Amino acid sequence: MIWTKEQLAELDGRYRGRFINSISGVKPANLIATKSKEGLSNVALFSSVVHLGANPAMLGFVMRPPTVERHTWDNILETEVYTINMVTTELSEKAHYTSARSERNASEFEWCDLEEAYYEDFHAPYVGNSPLSYGMRLENKFPISNGCYFISGTVEWVKFDEAFLAQDGYLDIAEQGAAGIVALDGYHGLSKQFRLSFAKKGEELQQLKDFKKGW
Amino acid sequence: MIWTKEQLAELDGRYRGRFINSISGVKPANLIATKSKEGLSNVALFSSVVHLGANPAMLGFVMRPPTVERHTWDNILETEVYTINMVTTELSEKAHYTSARSERNASEFEWCDLEEAYYEDFHAPYVGNSPLSYGMRLENKFPISNGCYFISGTVEWVKFDEAFLAQDGYLDIAEQGAAGIVALDGYHGLSKQFRLSFAKKGEELQQLKDFKKGW
Repeated sequence: MIWTKEQLAELDGRYRGRFINSISGVKPANLIATKSKEGLSNVALFSSVVHLGANPAMLGFVMRPPTVERHTWDNILETEVYTINMVTTELSEKAHYTSARSERNASEFEWCDLEEAYYEDFHAPYVGNSPLSYGMRLENKFPISNGCYFISGTVEWVKFDEAFLAQDGYLDIAEQGAAGIVALDGYHGLSKQFRLSFAKKGEELQQLKDFKKGW
Repeated sequence: MIWTKEQLAELDGRYRGRFINSISGVKPANLIATKSKEGLSNVALFSSVVHLGANPAMLGFVMRPPTVERHTWDNILETEVYTINMVTTELSEKAHYTSARSERNASEFEWCDLEEAYYEDFHAPYVGNSPLSYGMRLENKFPISNGCYFISGTVEWVKFDEAFLAQDGYLDIAEQGAAGIVALDGYHGLSKQFRLSFAKKGEELQQLKDFKKGW
């Protein structure tokens, strides 16, 4: 069936929220970790991390309107650094729990039972339970008309498990248990279908060998 | 192991591209369809669609630098409308094939064997083979430092299969076969883990009933 924007506008707010959050497709589950200048650490679940470029390595994410208290936002503006940490299906309950409202001085590392870890003197902590973490430096913030901001940043370092790194640079995060989110609360694992060759018009696509074998 | 940005910069370009494209987590597979004013239609695969807000319904995506011929970009600037169409694992080979370079006057609808369909007088076509399509209107474009643009748009209409719509507005795209992409060429299906209740500090998370049953 088809719903027009007028029909969407008439839906109950929470119902519309779930529906519109479903239509973008599967979203990556990541925890963004920060620490204020005073040393209060914070971890929050984001499903909007997006690739921007590999040279230099850049990623972006969407920050909701800073109308309520947003600890992640405050800490990033204050310190300009943050880490992005992959959520696995094993971690998904703890990650989801970080979305509960909490006081400024309560660290999700503690009450969500996540491991606060540090790479050298990088100010923002990373999530020690996650198999893939990277340090980011704020580059820019772009105001969207609805009050959100699109945040761009550059990669300072990447901590990963080389056991899942293919010879050509592909990191098999599906094999590592990466979680995907649908809407606001639907958690999923990834089942490998295939890797396909570089597409050229007039040539048939080839499936890369050994991809589904595991590691 | 840990790679710093200096080490990342030294990697072979394609290797680094695969690696950095892997770390954001799973990405939604979508086809964006457009049509020029002269009537040339175009379909291209994007893995960067991101939710911006539900009221009004808004989504964004990343457009790579328009230094080479970018038909999608040209058509969106010219007509200000486009459609986003969910790629299923069944469609993933055809969707991947759209990434091959082609001449301006060759429509991917034809040489990738995709169905060109229209909703009323909306100028941009949608992909008839996709179980979920929505019409978008360009709102803004934000220049990223590396030459990419972040594009924001508003939802004009959504075409979906109500058989997969839960009572609370959740659309079960995993059950519909939604595909997720890792890096540039790794296609995956989604295996449902659970839906979790709204998180409140001090309360245990509940798993929503019947989610894994299918439809």
